[in-house]
Amino acid sequence: MAGYVEEAIYKSVQALQDRDPSLANDVEDADDKIDDLDNVVTEECLKLLALHQPVAIDLRRITAVFMIATDLERMADLATDIAKRAASLVDARAVATPTKLTQMADLTTSMVRQSLDAFVNSDCKLARRVIHLDDSVDQLNSEIISELIVKMKAAPEAVEPNLSLFSAVRHMERIADHATNIAEDVLYLVDGEIVRHRYTPKLDD
Amino acid sequence: MAGYVEEAIYKSVQALQDRDPSLANDVEDADDKIDDLDNVVTEECLKLLALHQPVAIDLRRITAVFMIATDLERMADLATDIAKRAASLVDARAVATPTKLTQMADLTTSMVRQSLDAFVNSDCKLARRVIHLDDSVDQLNSEIISELIVKMKAAPEAVEPNLSLFSAVRHMERIADHATNIAEDVLYLVDGEIVRHRYTPKLDD
Repeated sequence: MAGYVEEAIYKSVQALQDRDPSLANDVEDADDKIDDLDNVVTEECLKLLALHQPVAIDLRRITAVFMIATDLERMADLATDIAKRAASLVDARAVATPTKLTQMADLTTSMVRQSLDAFVNSDCKLARRVIHLDDSVDQLNSEIISELIVKMKAAPEAVEPNLSLFSAVRHMERIADHATNIAEDVLYLVDGEIVRHRYTPKLDD
Repeated sequence: MAGYVEEAIYKSVQALQDRDPSLANDVEDADDKIDDLDNVVTEECLKLLALHQPVAIDLRRITAVFMIATDLERMADLATDIAKRAASLVDARAVATPTKLTQMADLTTSMVRQSLDAFVNSDCKLARRVIHLDDSVDQLNSEIISELIVKMKAAPEAVEPNLSLFSAVRHMERIADHATNIAEDVLYLVDGEIVRHRYTPKLDD
C-alpha cells in the first residue's frame, strides 16, 4: 500500500510538471486500489484485535498500523487531487509550474519514504527528523503561494491555471502533514505516548 | 468533544461573515482543547481494547469511536483554518463573503450534527441522508469557486482576499467530507461492513 502511495505522489507531481494527462489518469486509477487496500488493512487489524486480544506493544503496533493506513489513504486522495489539477492544466502550458514546487515535492516524497522507514525500523531519531522537515515544506508552501499571488495579480486572464497550481501546492503541503502524522505514530509506537497534536520537534532531542 | 467541534465550525463561519477577529481567536483556542480530548478518547479506546478484549458489536463500536474522534479533530483543524482566513480578511471588508457560503456552512453544520445523531442512535437511514447531502455541498462548493474566479479576474487588486475566501470554501467542503466519513462509520457500526470509499448513496435504499 505504501509503495503504491509513494508512486501515486511521484506521478501526480510528474503529471503537473509535464502536463501529462495519462500520468494523471494512472494516479486516479491507483486510488481505487489503495482504497481497497486501506479497507483490507482495517479489516485485518480488527481481526487481530478480536482473535488475539493483543496488549502493550502489540496493541500499540496494530493501532499504529490502523492510523498509518488512514494517513496513507488520505495521501493517495491528495495525490489524486493533484493529478486532477494537473489534468486541468494540460491546456495551460504557458503558465509555468513554480520551480520551488519540484523542491517541495522532492522534500515531501522523501518525508513520506522516511516516515515509513522510521515505522518499519521503529527509528525515533528518523521520525523526529521527518517532523522537523515539515517546517521546510511549510516554508516552501508560503513562498510558492506568494509567488502565485503575484502572478494572478499581474495576469488576470491566468487566474484559473494559477488557482489550480495553488490548490496543488496546498494538497502537497497536506501530504507532508500526513507524513508527519506517521512519524508521530512511530514515536507513539516506541514510547507509548500519544504525541499527535503535541510534539514540538527538536533536532537534538 | 463533538459539542466543541460543532461550536468551532459555527463560530469560524460567523467570524468569516462578520470579519470578527475575537470569534476567530475563540476557534483557535478551542482547537487545543479538542486536540486534548482526541488524545483522551484515543487513550480510553486503547484501554478498553486492552482491558476488556471486546468482540463483535462492542469492538466495532470502539473502532467507530476511534475513527469518529479522528474525524472530529480534523474538522476542528479545518474550522481553525477557516478562522485564520477570517482573521486575514478583517481589513478587507469591501470584499464580500459569497452569500452561498452561508448556505454551504448551514448545510455542512447540519451534516455534522446529523452524522453524530446517526451515530448516537445507530440510525442508518439518517446516515445515508448525510452521505446524500454531501452532493449538495459539493455543488455549492463548485458554484462559489466559479463566482470567486470571476471576481479575481475582474479585480486583480482583490486577488488575496478572494483567495482567502477560496481556501475557506475548500476547508468547509472538507468538513462536510469528514461528516460523510462519520456517516459511513455508522453504516459500518450497524451493518459490520466497511463502507468508507465504497458507498454510493441512494436515498431510497
